[in-house]
Amino acid sequence: MKYPDKEMFNYVLNYFDELGIDLDEIAKQAVEHQKKYLPSLTLEDGHKRIYAILHKREVLNNLMTAIALDELANKGLLPEPLQSVVERDAGVYGVDEALAIANSIIAGSIAVTNYGFLDVKKSKVAKHLDDLQKSGKMITVFIDDQISALQAMVEGSLAHKKETSSFDEDTLY
Amino acid sequence: MKYPDKEMFNYVLNYFDELGIDLDEIAKQAVEHQKKYLPSLTLEDGHKRIYAILHKREVLNNLMTAIALDELANKGLLPEPLQSVVERDAGVYGVDEALAIANSIIAGSIAVTNYGFLDVKKSKVAKHLDDLQKSGKMITVFIDDQISALQAMVEGSLAHKKETSSFDEDTLY
Amino acid sequence: MKYPDKEMFNYVLNYFDELGIDLDEIAKQAVEHQKKYLPSLTLEDGHKRIYAILHKREVLNNLMTAIALDELANKGLLPEPLQSVVERDAGVYGVDEALAIANSIIAGSIAVTNYGFLDVKKSKVAKHLDDLQKSGKMITVFIDDQISALQAMVEGSLAHKKETSSFDEDTLY
Amino acid sequence: MKYPDKEMFNYVLNYFDELGIDLDEIAKQAVEHQKKYLPSLTLEDGHKRIYAILHKREVLNNLMTAIALDELANKGLLPEPLQSVVERDAGVYGVDEALAIANSIIAGSIAVTNYGFLDVKKSKVAKHLDDLQKSGKMITVFIDDQISALQAMVEGSLAHKKETSSFDEDTLY
Repeated sequence: MKYPDKEMFNYVLNYFDELGIDLDEIAKQAVEHQKKYLPSLTLEDGHKRIYAILHKREVLNNLMTAIALDELANKGLLPEPLQSVVERDAGVYGVDEALAIANSIIAGSIAVTNYGFLDVKKSKVAKHLDDLQKSGKMITVFIDDQISALQAMVEGSLAHKKETSSFDEDTLY
Repeated sequence: MKYPDKEMFNYVLNYFDELGIDLDEIAKQAVEHQKKYLPSLTLEDGHKRIYAILHKREVLNNLMTAIALDELANKGLLPEPLQSVVERDAGVYGVDEALAIANSIIAGSIAVTNYGFLDVKKSKVAKHLDDLQKSGKMITVFIDDQISALQAMVEGSLAHKKETSSFDEDTLY
Repeated sequence: MKYPDKEMFNYVLNYFDELGIDLDEIAKQAVEHQKKYLPSLTLEDGHKRIYAILHKREVLNNLMTAIALDELANKGLLPEPLQSVVERDAGVYGVDEALAIANSIIAGSIAVTNYGFLDVKKSKVAKHLDDLQKSGKMITVFIDDQISALQAMVEGSLAHKKETSSFDEDTLY
Repeated sequence: MKYPDKEMFNYVLNYFDELGIDLDEIAKQAVEHQKKYLPSLTLEDGHKRIYAILHKREVLNNLMTAIALDELANKGLLPEPLQSVVERDAGVYGVDEALAIANSIIAGSIAVTNYGFLDVKKSKVAKHLDDLQKSGKMITVFIDDQISALQAMVEGSLAHKKETSSFDEDTLY
């Protein structure tokens, strides 16, 4: 039996589509954030990194679980008192953040600080998700943090890839 | 509106009852594990610590969410492919571990290493949960790790509380 | 032999003094950040929380180690290539962030996101530390993140303490 | 100015040599641990994975810092009370574990649980390091945990690489 990496990837991307989450917009914002440090970054760099990250199994595991919790909350299927806590998006419920930290840390500690920043200072896409929740149309408690984490991972990854290195992998390996 | 700490506590303890999880047994094992370092530890110490930990809001948030995922999996309500991944308890799905790490780390880094040990070398209670899953009676993917994390937190907490300290809080504070 | 909690506390507070780090200023900023959610917060609340946090052994362990690394870097005593990496405060060196995350996570996942925000959007105290480094007077690579983490922990702690709870600890315990 | 990845790699491997830490032995043990799940694993697989992991910048950052702390402790150069805490390898000092967790989590949450297990149930190499410390010859407080984390990362990485996947990367990317 094969691990359903492809099915997870499709599940995640379908949910992004449903919510109007634009991967290119996330990649673009990540590139813009990092451009002050790395002026030569291109949209293509951001695009490549976001797809590379979305092919990591641990990332997909986390994202899929976060989305499942939102979907079940949307249908009112979470057991109480969890359903009420998620519906009111209580500030002292931090499992959405914990799952996003677990995700962003895969890209290193700098991705975690970037995630924290984006979580407080909502990005364009995160604001769109926040609006969906506040308008009462949809619960976006978990996906909101995952999107900030995703952008943070792209940023961290771009920073690492672009710093010139004293490594000559051909000779070292 | 009040945050439902008490309801979370009751929800968690009811689920423990349903699964035959005995808090005193967990406390006892934690005390036994730490007794080699701290011979004067008593069952009463373990009992006090486990209840103190189960009164922490962050701990209850994590536990409640983990249990909800198991409950929904038991009813076949998780969206695919998550439902299949959880049903087969796939080794490379690590969100159950991520939630348990997020919980145990609240008691410090030593609780995390203790959790890791208990996760690999199943405790009596964790073995009971594992048997439930393997017999096909119940899905215990998330609660299994949470129970190991809970014991690990009690152990870490006992270790900290019993080490004599140069602190004289009366004068310092 | 007693664990030197008091000595660690004194070591940390002495270093804060040396660098002109004002605990009351950190407490004040934490209270101001949380006041939008909790208008009744007082400076006294912040003051109490920061001292409570600075009495936690795990927090002191992390802080002491971070400060030791800065002190040794200031004296040029770190082995190469670590000394050079810390001197130039390289953006892709993330151990200062990792130690700050390890610290803030003790106060829960919300403290981690607050830390991330403060790490990117420097607080008054963190800016002061940054200026010390940039002026070439002192290396503040590790303490910088620890101070943001400390403020983040106070904020997280204030948020938790002030949310009204359905817990009646007297009856539950 | 280039980031000294190569210098970090050399620094780490030189220190391993000095302490008689054998990378092939670590790789071998990781393969043996995973063989119960994946019988087709070869020593070559383990060897490849350990070098791939030791080429990650975040891993080298963490390892280099941990080693620096041991080296400085060996020379008696850590400020007090940190020097005494590290010399007596106090059980409630958990920064060595925190740095090892920060490292292993890069390979995912399963690597963290494996690290926790190896930290409690010392591997052959970790036992060798423990003996060095106990004989009073050398302080190995930080490297000890890093070696367990390294083996845990190899194990986690092997588990992920060997699980067959529904991903066909050629078509998806």
